[in-house]
Amino acid sequence: MNFHVMTLFPELIEKGMNTGVLYRAMDRGILSLHTYNIRDYVADKHKRVDDYTYGGGAGMLIQAEHVYQTYLDVMRRIGEGRKVRVIYTTPQGSVFTQQKAEELSKEEDLIFLCGHYEGIDERVLEEIVSDNLSIGDYILTGGELASLVMMDAVSRLIPGVLNNDESAMTESFSEGLLEYPQYTRPEEWHGKKVPEVLLSGHHANVEKWRLEQSIERTRERRPDLYEKWKAENDN
Amino acid sequence: MNFHVMTLFPELIEKGMNTGVLYRAMDRGILSLHTYNIRDYVADKHKRVDDYTYGGGAGMLIQAEHVYQTYLDVMRRIGEGRKVRVIYTTPQGSVFTQQKAEELSKEEDLIFLCGHYEGIDERVLEEIVSDNLSIGDYILTGGELASLVMMDAVSRLIPGVLNNDESAMTESFSEGLLEYPQYTRPEEWHGKKVPEVLLSGHHANVEKWRLEQSIERTRERRPDLYEKWKAENDN
Repeated sequence: MNFHVMTLFPELIEKGMNTGVLYRAMDRGILSLHTYNIRDYVADKHKRVDDYTYGGGAGMLIQAEHVYQTYLDVMRRIGEGRKVRVIYTTPQGSVFTQQKAEELSKEEDLIFLCGHYEGIDERVLEEIVSDNLSIGDYILTGGELASLVMMDAVSRLIPGVLNNDESAMTESFSEGLLEYPQYTRPEEWHGKKVPEVLLSGHHANVEKWRLEQSIERTRERRPDLYEKWKAENDN
Repeated sequence: MNFHVMTLFPELIEKGMNTGVLYRAMDRGILSLHTYNIRDYVADKHKRVDDYTYGGGAGMLIQAEHVYQTYLDVMRRIGEGRKVRVIYTTPQGSVFTQQKAEELSKEEDLIFLCGHYEGIDERVLEEIVSDNLSIGDYILTGGELASLVMMDAVSRLIPGVLNNDESAMTESFSEGLLEYPQYTRPEEWHGKKVPEVLLSGHHANVEKWRLEQSIERTRERRPDLYEKWKAENDN
Protein backbone atom coordinates (compact mmCIF):
# COMPACT_ATOMS: atom_id res chain seq x y z
CA MET A 1 0.00 0.00 0.00
CA ASN A 2 1.35 3.38 -1.01
CA PHE A 3 -0.06 6.46 0.70
CA HIS A 4 0.21 9.80 -1.09
CA VAL A 5 -0.71 12.82 0.97
CA MET A 6 -1.33 16.30 -0.44
CA THR A 7 -1.07 18.82 2.39
CA LEU A 8 0.20 22.22 3.47
CA PHE A 9 1.87 20.55 6.47
CA PRO A 10 3.85 17.55 5.21
CA GLU A 11 5.99 17.44 8.36
CA LEU A 12 2.89 16.82 10.48
CA ILE A 13 2.08 13.75 8.37
CA GLU A 14 5.65 12.52 8.37
CA LYS A 15 6.05 12.92 12.12
CA GLY A 16 2.72 11.23 12.73
CA MET A 17 3.79 8.18 10.73
CA ASN A 18 7.29 8.21 12.17
CA THR A 19 6.63 6.07 15.23
CA GLY A 20 5.05 2.81 16.19
CA VAL A 21 3.44 0.16 14.11
CA LEU A 22 3.15 2.10 10.87
CA TYR A 23 6.77 3.15 10.90
CA ARG A 24 7.82 -0.46 11.37
CA ALA A 25 5.62 -1.46 8.43
CA MET A 26 7.20 1.24 6.27
CA ASP A 27 10.62 0.08 7.31
CA ARG A 28 9.76 -3.43 6.15
CA GLY A 29 8.42 -2.12 2.86
CA ILE A 30 4.79 -3.12 3.46
CA LEU A 31 3.71 0.52 3.44
CA SER A 32 5.13 3.60 1.81
CA LEU A 33 4.38 7.24 2.43
CA HIS A 34 4.86 10.15 0.04
CA THR A 35 3.93 13.68 1.01
CA TYR A 36 3.37 16.57 -1.38
CA ASN A 37 3.38 20.14 -0.16
CA ILE A 38 0.63 22.00 -2.02
CA ARG A 39 2.60 25.21 -1.55
CA ASP A 40 5.38 23.82 -3.77
CA TYR A 41 2.96 23.77 -6.68
CA VAL A 42 2.06 27.45 -6.59
CA ALA A 43 3.39 29.10 -9.74
CA ASP A 44 3.35 32.62 -8.31
CA LYS A 45 6.58 33.64 -6.58
CA HIS A 46 4.82 34.73 -3.37
CA LYS A 47 3.69 31.11 -2.88
CA ARG A 48 0.34 32.23 -1.63
CA VAL A 49 -2.11 29.30 -1.68
CA ASP A 50 -5.32 30.88 -0.45
CA ASP A 51 -7.77 33.63 -1.34
CA TYR A 52 -11.10 35.09 -0.20
CA THR A 53 -14.43 33.31 -0.53
CA TYR A 54 -16.91 34.42 -3.20
CA GLY A 55 -20.17 35.50 -1.65
CA GLY A 56 -18.51 36.67 1.53
CA GLY A 57 -17.76 35.06 4.83
CA ALA A 58 -14.57 35.12 6.83
CA GLY A 59 -11.85 32.55 6.25
CA MET A 60 -9.63 31.73 3.32
CA LEU A 61 -9.92 28.97 0.73
CA ILE A 62 -7.15 27.05 -1.01
CA GLN A 63 -7.32 27.81 -4.73
CA ALA A 64 -8.23 25.07 -7.21
CA GLU A 65 -5.18 25.26 -9.46
CA HIS A 66 -2.60 24.65 -6.71
CA VAL A 67 -4.37 21.50 -5.60
CA TYR A 68 -4.77 20.39 -9.20
CA GLN A 69 -1.07 20.84 -10.01
CA THR A 70 -0.18 18.84 -6.90
CA TYR A 71 -2.56 16.09 -7.97
CA LEU A 72 -1.01 15.92 -11.46
CA ASP A 73 2.38 15.39 -9.87
CA VAL A 74 1.05 12.60 -7.64
CA MET A 75 -0.43 10.92 -10.72
CA ARG A 76 2.87 11.23 -12.59
CA ARG A 77 4.47 9.24 -9.79
CA ILE A 78 1.72 6.62 -9.54
CA GLY A 79 1.34 6.25 -13.28
CA GLU A 80 -0.97 8.46 -15.29
CA GLY A 81 -4.19 6.91 -16.47
CA ARG A 82 -4.43 4.61 -13.46
CA LYS A 83 -7.60 4.87 -11.44
CA VAL A 84 -6.71 5.81 -7.87
CA ARG A 85 -9.08 6.89 -5.13
CA VAL A 86 -8.62 10.42 -3.84
CA ILE A 87 -9.89 10.95 -0.30
CA TYR A 88 -10.67 14.45 0.88
CA THR A 89 -10.72 14.62 4.67
CA THR A 90 -13.51 17.01 5.56
CA PRO A 91 -16.25 17.39 8.16
CA GLN A 92 -18.52 17.67 5.09
CA GLY A 93 -17.95 14.07 4.15
CA SER A 94 -19.71 10.82 4.85
CA VAL A 95 -18.56 9.06 7.99
CA PHE A 96 -15.42 6.94 7.97
CA THR A 97 -16.11 3.54 9.56
CA GLN A 98 -14.36 0.22 10.03
CA GLN A 99 -16.20 -1.05 6.97
CA LYS A 100 -14.77 1.81 4.91
CA ALA A 101 -11.29 1.06 6.30
CA GLU A 102 -11.64 -2.54 5.12
CA GLU A 103 -12.72 -1.40 1.69
CA LEU A 104 -9.81 1.03 1.36
CA SER A 105 -7.27 -1.52 2.62
CA LYS A 106 -7.74 -3.46 -0.62
CA GLU A 107 -6.36 -0.62 -2.75
CA GLU A 108 -2.77 -0.47 -3.91
CA ASP A 109 -2.44 3.32 -3.79
CA LEU A 110 -4.48 5.88 -1.89
CA ILE A 111 -4.29 9.65 -2.27
CA PHE A 112 -5.29 11.87 0.65
CA LEU A 113 -6.07 15.55 0.31
CA CYS A 114 -5.90 17.47 3.58
CA GLY A 115 -8.01 20.60 3.85
CA HIS A 116 -6.97 23.62 5.81
CA TYR A 117 -8.28 27.09 6.58
CA GLU A 118 -11.91 27.38 5.53
CA GLY A 119 -11.50 24.66 2.89
CA ILE A 120 -10.76 24.17 -0.80
CA ASP A 121 -12.39 25.57 -3.94
CA GLU A 122 -15.26 23.21 -4.75
CA ARG A 123 -14.41 22.90 -8.44
CA VAL A 124 -11.16 21.01 -7.95
CA LEU A 125 -12.84 18.76 -5.39
CA GLU A 126 -15.49 17.88 -7.99
CA GLU A 127 -12.76 17.17 -10.50
CA ILE A 128 -10.38 14.93 -8.54
CA VAL A 129 -11.98 13.67 -5.30
CA SER A 130 -13.59 10.23 -5.21
CA ASP A 131 -14.36 10.04 -1.47
CA ASN A 132 -15.33 12.87 0.88
CA LEU A 133 -14.76 11.37 4.31
CA SER A 134 -15.14 12.65 7.85
CA ILE A 135 -13.63 10.88 10.86
CA GLY A 136 -16.36 12.22 13.16
CA ASP A 137 -18.68 15.06 14.08
CA TYR A 138 -16.14 17.53 15.39
CA ILE A 139 -13.94 20.22 13.89
CA LEU A 140 -10.17 19.94 13.68
CA THR A 141 -7.61 22.63 12.86
CA GLY A 142 -6.84 20.81 9.60
CA GLY A 143 -7.22 17.58 7.70
CA GLU A 144 -3.82 16.17 8.65
CA LEU A 145 -4.84 14.30 11.81
CA ALA A 146 -7.90 12.96 10.03
CA SER A 147 -5.68 11.54 7.27
CA LEU A 148 -3.37 10.00 9.85
CA VAL A 149 -6.34 8.37 11.58
CA MET A 150 -7.60 6.89 8.31
CA MET A 151 -4.14 5.70 7.28
CA ASP A 152 -3.71 4.06 10.68
CA ALA A 153 -7.09 2.29 10.55
CA VAL A 154 -6.46 1.13 6.97
CA SER A 155 -2.85 0.06 7.55
CA ARG A 156 -3.52 -2.29 10.43
CA LEU A 157 -5.80 -4.32 8.17
CA ILE A 158 -3.04 -4.96 5.65
CA PRO A 159 -1.49 -8.42 6.09
CA GLY A 160 1.91 -8.27 7.78
CA VAL A 161 1.50 -4.83 9.35
CA LEU A 162 0.53 -6.07 12.80
CA ASN A 163 2.25 -8.83 14.70
CA ASN A 164 0.25 -11.55 16.44
CA ASP A 165 -0.27 -9.79 19.75
CA GLU A 166 -1.54 -6.70 18.09
CA SER A 167 -3.70 -8.31 15.46
CA ALA A 168 -5.61 -10.00 18.23
CA MET A 169 -7.32 -6.70 19.01
CA THR A 170 -10.97 -7.54 19.00
CA GLU A 171 -12.84 -6.14 16.08
CA SER A 172 -15.25 -4.26 18.28
CA PHE A 173 -17.56 -3.27 15.51
CA SER A 174 -17.65 -6.45 13.50
CA GLU A 175 -20.41 -7.97 15.64
CA GLY A 176 -22.01 -4.60 16.25
CA LEU A 177 -21.30 -4.64 20.00
CA LEU A 178 -18.63 -2.99 22.13
CA GLU A 179 -16.00 -5.18 23.70
CA TYR A 180 -16.41 -6.65 27.21
CA PRO A 181 -14.20 -5.65 30.18
CA GLN A 182 -10.86 -7.42 30.44
CA TYR A 183 -8.57 -8.31 33.31
CA THR A 184 -4.99 -9.41 33.79
CA ARG A 185 -2.81 -10.24 36.80
CA PRO A 186 -2.97 -9.89 39.74
CA GLU A 187 -6.19 -11.66 40.69
CA GLU A 188 -6.88 -9.00 43.28
CA TRP A 189 -6.00 -5.33 42.91
CA HIS A 190 -7.13 -2.53 45.22
CA GLY A 191 -9.59 -4.94 46.79
CA LYS A 192 -11.15 -5.71 43.41
CA LYS A 193 -11.17 -9.32 42.28
CA VAL A 194 -11.17 -10.62 38.73
CA PRO A 195 -14.71 -11.96 38.06
CA GLU A 196 -14.87 -15.60 39.18
CA VAL A 197 -16.06 -16.93 35.84
CA LEU A 198 -12.87 -15.78 34.07
CA LEU A 199 -10.80 -17.97 36.39
CA SER A 200 -13.08 -20.98 36.00
CA GLY A 201 -11.58 -22.34 32.80
CA HIS A 202 -15.12 -23.05 31.63
CA HIS A 203 -14.99 -21.73 28.10
CA ALA A 204 -18.74 -21.61 27.39
CA ASN A 205 -19.43 -19.71 30.61
CA VAL A 206 -16.67 -17.24 29.83
CA GLU A 207 -18.18 -16.62 26.41
CA LYS A 208 -21.63 -16.17 27.90
CA TRP A 209 -20.39 -13.69 30.51
CA ARG A 210 -18.48 -11.71 27.90
CA LEU A 211 -21.47 -11.48 25.60
CA GLU A 212 -23.67 -10.25 28.47
CA GLN A 213 -21.08 -7.64 29.40
CA SER A 214 -20.79 -6.53 25.79
CA ILE A 215 -24.53 -6.11 25.49
CA GLU A 216 -24.79 -4.21 28.77
CA ARG A 217 -21.89 -1.91 27.92
CA THR A 218 -23.19 -1.20 24.43
CA ARG A 219 -26.64 -0.35 25.83
CA GLU A 220 -25.09 2.08 28.31
CA ARG A 221 -22.50 3.80 26.17
CA ARG A 222 -23.80 3.42 22.63
CA PRO A 223 -27.58 3.23 22.62
CA ASP A 224 -27.44 3.77 18.84
CA LEU A 225 -25.38 0.61 18.26
CA TYR A 226 -27.44 -1.30 20.80
CA GLU A 227 -30.73 -0.56 19.03
CA LYS A 228 -29.23 -1.65 15.73
CA TRP A 229 -27.83 -4.85 17.19
CA LYS A 230 -31.12 -5.61 18.92
CA ALA A 231 -33.12 -5.10 15.74
CA GLU A 232 -30.82 -7.47 13.88
CA ASN A 233 -30.82 -10.11 16.60
CA ASP A 234 -34.54 -10.11 17.30
CA ASN A 235 -35.16 -11.72 13.94
CA MET B 1 -5.35 24.48 29.37
CA ASN B 2 -2.85 21.85 30.44
CA PHE B 3 -2.91 18.49 28.72
CA HIS B 4 -1.45 15.49 30.53
CA VAL B 5 -1.08 12.36 28.45
CA MET B 6 -0.38 8.90 29.86
CA THR B 7 0.92 6.69 27.06
CA LEU B 8 3.40 4.03 26.04
CA PHE B 9 4.42 6.24 23.08
CA PRO B 10 5.06 9.76 24.39
CA GLU B 11 7.10 10.70 21.31
CA LEU B 12 4.08 10.11 19.09
CA ILE B 13 2.08 12.61 21.15
CA GLU B 14 4.91 15.13 21.25
CA LYS B 15 5.56 14.94 17.54
CA GLY B 16 1.86 15.22 16.80
CA MET B 17 1.63 18.43 18.81
CA ASN B 18 4.91 19.76 17.49
CA THR B 19 3.59 21.52 14.41
CA GLY B 20 0.93 23.94 13.36
CA VAL B 21 -1.64 25.76 15.38
CA LEU B 22 -1.27 23.83 18.62
CA TYR B 23 2.47 24.25 18.70
CA ARG B 24 2.08 28.00 18.24
CA ALA B 25 -0.41 28.05 21.12
CA MET B 26 1.98 26.11 23.34
CA ASP B 27 4.74 28.50 22.40
CA ARG B 28 2.58 31.41 23.52
CA GLY B 29 1.72 29.68 26.77
CA ILE B 30 -1.98 29.22 26.05
CA LEU B 31 -1.60 25.44 26.05
CA SER B 32 0.83 23.13 27.75
CA LEU B 33 1.53 19.46 27.12
CA HIS B 34 3.02 16.94 29.54
CA THR B 35 3.52 13.33 28.57
CA TYR B 36 4.04 10.43 30.95
CA ASN B 37 5.45 7.14 29.77
CA ILE B 38 3.55 4.37 31.55
CA ARG B 39 6.62 2.15 31.15
CA ASP B 40 8.57 4.48 33.45
CA TYR B 41 6.23 3.58 36.30
CA VAL B 42 6.82 -0.16 36.21
CA ALA B 43 8.57 -1.21 39.41
CA ASP B 44 9.91 -4.46 37.99
CA LYS B 45 13.33 -4.15 36.37
CA HIS B 46 12.23 -5.80 33.11
CA LYS B 47 9.82 -2.90 32.56
CA ARG B 48 7.18 -5.20 31.22
CA VAL B 49 3.80 -3.42 31.17
CA ASP B 50 1.49 -6.10 29.86
CA ASP B 51 0.26 -9.58 30.68
CA TYR B 52 -2.22 -12.19 29.45
CA THR B 53 -5.99 -11.84 29.64
CA TYR B 54 -7.95 -13.83 32.24
CA GLY B 55 -10.49 -16.06 30.60
CA GLY B 56 -8.40 -16.49 27.48
CA GLY B 57 -8.21 -14.70 24.19
CA ALA B 58 -5.18 -13.53 22.30
CA GLY B 59 -3.68 -10.12 22.94
CA MET B 60 -2.05 -8.52 25.94
CA LEU B 61 -3.45 -6.10 28.51
CA ILE B 62 -1.68 -3.28 30.32
CA GLN B 63 -1.66 -4.06 34.03
CA ALA B 64 -3.62 -1.90 36.48
CA GLU B 65 -0.81 -0.92 38.82
CA HIS B 66 1.43 0.65 36.16
CA VAL B 67 -1.36 2.89 34.96
CA TYR B 68 -2.29 3.74 38.54
CA GLN B 69 1.27 4.73 39.48
CA THR B 70 1.45 6.93 36.37
CA TYR B 71 -1.84 8.56 37.36
CA LEU B 72 -0.59 9.28 40.88
CA ASP B 73 2.40 11.09 39.40
CA VAL B 74 0.17 13.17 37.12
CA MET B 75 -1.92 14.14 40.15
CA ARG B 76 1.17 15.09 42.11
CA ARG B 77 1.99 17.57 39.37
CA ILE B 78 -1.54 18.94 39.02
CA GLY B 79 -2.15 19.10 42.74
CA GLU B 80 -3.49 16.15 44.68
CA GLY B 81 -7.11 16.35 45.75
CA ARG B 82 -8.12 18.41 42.72
CA LYS B 83 -10.88 16.97 40.60
CA VAL B 84 -9.58 16.48 37.07
CA ARG B 85 -11.27 14.60 34.26
CA VAL B 86 -9.47 11.53 32.99
CA ILE B 87 -10.32 10.58 29.41
CA TYR B 88 -9.66 7.05 28.23
CA THR B 89 -9.53 6.90 24.44
CA THR B 90 -11.18 3.64 23.47
CA PRO B 91 -13.47 2.25 20.79
CA GLN B 92 -15.56 1.10 23.80
CA GLY B 93 -16.44 4.65 24.71
CA SER B 94 -19.29 6.99 23.94
CA VAL B 95 -18.78 9.07 20.83
CA PHE B 96 -16.68 12.23 20.93
CA THR B 97 -18.57 15.12 19.30
CA GLN B 98 -18.21 18.86 18.85
CA GLN B 99 -20.48 19.32 21.87
CA LYS B 100 -18.14 17.20 23.98
CA ALA B 101 -15.18 19.24 22.70
CA GLU B 102 -16.91 22.42 23.86
CA GLU B 103 -17.59 20.93 27.26
CA LEU B 104 -13.98 19.79 27.69
CA SER B 105 -12.56 23.13 26.50
CA LYS B 106 -13.85 24.72 29.73
CA GLU B 107 -11.55 22.60 31.90
CA GLU B 108 -8.20 23.82 33.17
CA ASP B 109 -6.47 20.45 33.09
CA LEU B 110 -7.31 17.31 31.15
CA ILE B 111 -5.71 13.91 31.55
CA PHE B 112 -5.68 11.49 28.63
CA LEU B 113 -5.03 7.79 28.96
CA CYS B 114 -4.03 6.09 25.70
CA GLY B 115 -4.76 2.41 25.40
CA HIS B 116 -2.58 0.02 23.49
CA TYR B 117 -2.46 -3.69 22.71
CA GLU B 118 -5.72 -5.35 23.64
CA GLY B 119 -6.48 -2.71 26.26
CA ILE B 120 -6.09 -2.00 29.97
CA ASP B 121 -7.18 -3.92 33.06
CA GLU B 122 -10.75 -2.85 33.77
CA ARG B 123 -10.21 -2.26 37.48
CA VAL B 124 -7.91 0.73 37.09
CA LEU B 125 -10.24 2.19 34.46
CA GLU B 126 -13.10 1.96 36.97
CA GLU B 127 -10.94 3.66 39.56
CA ILE B 128 -9.54 6.65 37.66
CA VAL B 129 -11.38 7.23 34.36
CA SER B 130 -14.19 9.79 34.21
CA ASP B 131 -14.84 9.70 30.44
CA ASN B 132 -14.58 6.73 28.07
CA LEU B 133 -14.51 8.36 24.65
CA SER B 134 -14.25 7.06 21.10
CA ILE B 135 -13.45 9.30 18.12
CA GLY B 136 -15.38 7.04 15.76
CA ASP B 137 -16.42 3.53 14.79
CA TYR B 138 -13.08 2.23 13.56
CA ILE B 139 -10.06 0.57 15.17
CA LEU B 140 -6.68 2.26 15.49
CA THR B 141 -3.33 0.75 16.41
CA GLY B 142 -3.43 2.71 19.68
CA GLY B 143 -5.08 5.54 21.55
CA GLU B 144 -2.45 8.14 20.70
CA LEU B 145 -3.99 9.49 17.49
CA ALA B 146 -7.39 9.56 19.17
CA SER B 147 -5.97 11.69 21.99
CA LEU B 148 -4.33 14.03 19.48
CA VAL B 149 -7.63 14.40 17.65
CA MET B 150 -9.48 15.28 20.86
CA MET B 151 -6.76 17.69 21.99
CA ASP B 152 -6.89 19.39 18.60
CA ALA B 153 -10.69 19.74 18.61
CA VAL B 154 -10.66 21.02 22.19
CA SER B 155 -7.73 23.39 21.73
CA ARG B 156 -9.14 25.32 18.82
CA LEU B 157 -12.10 26.33 20.99
CA ILE B 158 -9.87 27.96 23.59
CA PRO B 159 -9.73 31.76 23.18
CA GLY B 160 -6.46 32.90 21.62
CA VAL B 161 -5.50 29.58 20.06
CA LEU B 162 -6.75 30.38 16.55
CA ASN B 163 -6.15 33.60 14.69
CA ASN B 164 -8.97 35.37 12.86
CA ASP B 165 -8.67 33.55 9.55
CA GLU B 166 -8.72 30.20 11.20
CA SER B 167 -11.42 30.88 13.76
CA ALA B 168 -13.75 31.69 10.91
CA MET B 169 -14.02 27.98 10.14
CA THR B 170 -17.72 27.35 10.01
CA GLU B 171 -19.02 25.33 12.88
CA SER B 172 -20.47 22.70 10.60
CA PHE B 173 -22.31 20.88 13.32
CA SER B 174 -23.68 23.77 15.29
CA GLU B 175 -26.72 24.13 13.05
CA GLY B 176 -26.89 20.41 12.38
CA LEU B 177 -26.12 20.75 8.65
CA LEU B 178 -22.97 20.26 6.62
CA GLU B 179 -21.32 23.29 5.13
CA TYR B 180 -22.15 24.52 1.60
CA PRO B 181 -19.62 24.45 -1.29
CA GLN B 182 -17.20 27.37 -1.45
CA TYR B 183 -15.34 29.09 -4.26
CA THR B 184 -12.44 31.48 -4.63
CA ARG B 185 -10.65 33.09 -7.58
CA PRO B 186 -10.57 32.74 -10.51
CA GLU B 187 -14.20 33.14 -11.57
CA GLU B 188 -13.73 30.44 -14.17
CA TRP B 189 -11.52 27.38 -13.75
CA HIS B 190 -11.41 24.37 -16.09
CA GLY B 191 -14.55 25.68 -17.74
CA LYS B 192 -16.41 25.75 -14.43
CA LYS B 193 -17.84 29.08 -13.31
CA VAL B 194 -18.46 30.25 -9.78
CA PRO B 195 -22.25 30.13 -9.23
CA GLU B 196 -23.78 33.43 -10.37
CA VAL B 197 -25.48 34.19 -7.09
CA LEU B 198 -22.17 34.33 -5.20
CA LEU B 199 -21.00 37.17 -7.46
CA SER B 200 -24.28 39.09 -7.15
CA GLY B 201 -23.51 40.88 -3.93
CA HIS B 202 -27.08 40.16 -2.87
CA HIS B 203 -26.59 38.99 0.67
CA ALA B 204 -30.02 37.44 1.25
CA ASN B 205 -29.84 35.43 -1.99
CA VAL B 206 -26.36 34.21 -1.10
CA GLU B 207 -27.63 33.02 2.27
CA LYS B 208 -30.60 31.30 0.68
CA TRP B 209 -28.41 29.51 -1.87
CA ARG B 210 -25.98 28.39 0.81
CA LEU B 211 -28.73 27.00 3.01
CA GLU B 212 -30.19 25.07 0.08
CA GLN B 213 -26.78 23.65 -0.76
CA SER B 214 -26.20 22.69 2.87
CA ILE B 215 -29.50 20.90 3.06
CA GLU B 216 -28.91 19.05 -0.21
CA ARG B 217 -25.38 18.03 0.74
CA THR B 218 -26.43 16.85 4.18
CA ARG B 219 -29.23 14.77 2.69
CA GLU B 220 -26.81 13.15 0.27
CA ARG B 221 -23.82 12.53 2.50
CA ARG B 222 -25.27 12.34 5.99
CA PRO B 223 -28.85 11.08 5.89
CA ASP B 224 -28.63 10.62 9.68
CA LEU B 225 -27.96 14.31 10.30
CA TYR B 226 -30.50 15.31 7.68
CA GLU B 227 -33.31 13.35 9.35
CA LYS B 228 -32.44 14.91 12.69
CA TRP B 229 -32.34 18.41 11.25
CA LYS B 230 -35.61 17.87 9.42
CA ALA B 231 -37.36 16.60 12.54
CA GLU B 232 -36.21 19.66 14.45
CA ASN B 233 -37.12 22.13 11.72
CA ASP B 234 -40.54 20.68 10.91
CA ASN B 235 -41.82 21.87 14.26
